[in-house]
Amino acid sequence: MSGQPMLATYLAENAALIEAELKRSLPEVWAVPPRLRESMDYSLSAGGKRLRPVLVLAAAEAARGGESDREAALRVACAVEMIHTYSLIHDDLPAMDNDDFRRGKPTNHRVFGEAMAILAGDGLLTHAFHMAASARRYGADAGVVLDIVEDLSRLSGPAGMVGGQAADMQGEQGATALPELQYIHEHKTSDLIIFSVTAGVRLGGARAEQLARLEQFGRKLGLAFQIQDDILDLIGDESKLGKKTNSDTAAGKVTYPYLVGMEESRRLLAQFTDDAKQALLEARLPKPERLVELADYLMNRDR
Amino acid sequence: MSGQPMLATYLAENAALIEAELKRSLPEVWAVPPRLRESMDYSLSAGGKRLRPVLVLAAAEAARGGESDREAALRVACAVEMIHTYSLIHDDLPAMDNDDFRRGKPTNHRVFGEAMAILAGDGLLTHAFHMAASARRYGADAGVVLDIVEDLSRLSGPAGMVGGQAADMQGEQGATALPELQYIHEHKTSDLIIFSVTAGVRLGGARAEQLARLEQFGRKLGLAFQIQDDILDLIGDESKLGKKTNSDTAAGKVTYPYLVGMEESRRLLAQFTDDAKQALLEARLPKPERLVELADYLMNRDR
Repeated sequence: MSGQPMLATYLAENAALIEAELKRSLPEVWAVPPRLRESMDYSLSAGGKRLRPVLVLAAAEAARGGESDREAALRVACAVEMIHTYSLIHDDLPAMDNDDFRRGKPTNHRVFGEAMAILAGDGLLTHAFHMAASARRYGADAGVVLDIVEDLSRLSGPAGMVGGQAADMQGEQGATALPELQYIHEHKTSDLIIFSVTAGVRLGGARAEQLARLEQFGRKLGLAFQIQDDILDLIGDESKLGKKTNSDTAAGKVTYPYLVGMEESRRLLAQFTDDAKQALLEARLPKPERLVELADYLMNRDR
Repeated sequence: MSGQPMLATYLAENAALIEAELKRSLPEVWAVPPRLRESMDYSLSAGGKRLRPVLVLAAAEAARGGESDREAALRVACAVEMIHTYSLIHDDLPAMDNDDFRRGKPTNHRVFGEAMAILAGDGLLTHAFHMAASARRYGADAGVVLDIVEDLSRLSGPAGMVGGQAADMQGEQGATALPELQYIHEHKTSDLIIFSVTAGVRLGGARAEQLARLEQFGRKLGLAFQIQDDILDLIGDESKLGKKTNSDTAAGKVTYPYLVGMEESRRLLAQFTDDAKQALLEARLPKPERLVELADYLMNRDR
């Protein structure tokens, strides 16, 4: 790791790059109605860990073995953050989770109204594909960009993230068992993380057998991420989380600790993290260290 | 026109092709939660004129000068129909237009609930980009397919159809003037029609200066289409329309007849149709006759 910045510095620097790119992602020359743009910007600039876009950048560097040629990866990084952001806006709607706050701020529909929140989500979802497709103008191969567009649609669509959300809406405490919970999280959480790491290594020039390993890395990392989320909801520090603890169980959600207990949840967290790192090492990327560090960081995070 | 089927036959045959392609557009191998798939299928198979996908096919034939190589155009045709269908599902939601019926059937959220209707819309919107990108596997050039993906995002996104819908939500009787009404319809209606005809001629191998003309053709055709919609809402035959007349004005919508009167609306309809046909002829496509016929048909339709 010599010569590399510390993980904290790496995360801060990359988050800043992503913020800047997100800011210029809706070109001023495009006539977007002001209130719609405001509503989209409100949620897009609400912060968060920017985990998915950072994974795109880190995966591209890991596959390429260096930091050059970051522009195309930045476009794809913004695309996945737009998908993630739209999914939060729609999930928070009264007809869905009916949440009033997100990251300590009023949710989009509380500020802009339900109709505008639906449209802001639709707008971000649609614009994400423009961001992804535009990677071609930053040096990425047209065939690779089309693979990325197809992956983004498949992994965030009806058989991916949207499917996970639909299954989640139909699940309920007392009726959902571990296989269903895993299905929900593989799609609601893992699929976008799979997209992030595979899109990154595609841009970095990975081969087909490496992609299969990275898909496994993303799947297990996503499940570990979700379990840590569930654990933090129960025993985390409210001031660090920016939300009340125990909100999941109170809202009637099925979580890992609810279903299998805290001890088994911790065991699964450690196992999924190990599985993830194993798959990553088997991919034999030129420079995987940062991705290993990110996996450890996600397992041990406190917010 | 010798050797060509009549327009009615052409429309029926192409609509059947599109129905069949839509049916197989969500591969069975993909694990989509059953209720979500049902909700998406419900709206996708609800019929309608299939105007936009037919325009994709007709434009591809006009540019190519023949009917061969239709598979790629069919994929893109399904993509635009999915975008159109998702926009209807979201527009009908209680927070938006709050409509209980569409084409004589209960609206999606009346059957599947609001949460599933939002997700079905998100799913169709996301899957549309998979359909468009997959045209590459049916013989289309990767660069052309990426142009089409970018156009689909731009014309259906925040500066396109979603922007038109946002402007429409904020408009009201008494406050909206002709320039705003035109802005709304150029985006809410024309943009997807522009997409349909330009994507079709891109697949047919059109040159840049032809694309500019076709964009103008689509814009004017969309405005003519919308005026005819507004006129039919006032004086159409309820049994043919499948809905009550005068519903727009009653719902507080601003329409062309409301704003400029019936006589001026008819004049604008004729003018926009002429402008559209003029732009089409100037594009000098090898075989434009079917598109001319479609323009005339849309102006004179009774439903």
